[in-house]
Amino acid sequence: MSACIFCEIAKHNIPAQIVWEDDLAMAFLDINPNSPGHTLIIPKEHYAQLEVTPDQALTEIFSRVKKFRVALKQAMKADYIVISIAGNDVDHLHIHLIPRHKNDGLVPWPQQKYLPGQAEEIIKQINNSLNQL
Amino acid sequence: MSACIFCEIAKHNIPAQIVWEDDLAMAFLDINPNSPGHTLIIPKEHYAQLEVTPDQALTEIFSRVKKFRVALKQAMKADYIVISIAGNDVDHLHIHLIPRHKNDGLVPWPQQKYLPGQAEEIIKQINNSLNQL
Repeated sequence: MSACIFCEIAKHNIPAQIVWEDDLAMAFLDINPNSPGHTLIIPKEHYAQLEVTPDQALTEIFSRVKKFRVALKQAMKADYIVISIAGNDVDHLHIHLIPRHKNDGLVPWPQQKYLPGQAEEIIKQINNSLNQL
Repeated sequence: MSACIFCEIAKHNIPAQIVWEDDLAMAFLDINPNSPGHTLIIPKEHYAQLEVTPDQALTEIFSRVKKFRVALKQAMKADYIVISIAGNDVDHLHIHLIPRHKNDGLVPWPQQKYLPGQAEEIIKQINNSLNQL
């Protein structure tokens, strides 16, 4: 058995609440949903993170995410579906689709403002890193 | 002037804190950042939402997101970068990249559990919607 729980789910070796699957991808309910219908979509092939996923595989997965999102919104009568990739838990690319309703209290995130000069400094830092890639 | 603020930013008609751009895409700092370095990546072409974005354009944008995420993580010394697409505000596809640090208090979301039978019912509803697409 592989060490990757999502590979095992993709192979049907570990049970999950599977919503849909085809040869390349699988959609199953998050075991700890943020809201009812919170779904994870994974490629069946193991890619640890977005960064190491080939463009072709990204296209395949996002074309499915795109379609699934429409169905999920309709099924859950959601106002919108948040898509999220966190990448701090299971090391197998997975895309969260989270149904949201207006006034559900699940505000996406708190907001801040930059201090004078802070944004310019950050832009410089990011470009330094970009130039080193 | 177009009615779309992100089209105007892409054309340099409205100022933004631009981090990086090329012919097809632009990265600029979110004006109300969730954390320092919170960046939006947009295609310069107008696509209202993920659902109406052609696969080819998705590939182009996510190949850039993939690379940018590495630089952003390094520049902000972040533990990870959350990627999010909400789609409840500006009607021009934009991908949030949000630097996160362990113990920054920005937990991604509250979690719930399904009641017995609830997950199965939801799976049925989603498949009904999928089958109607």
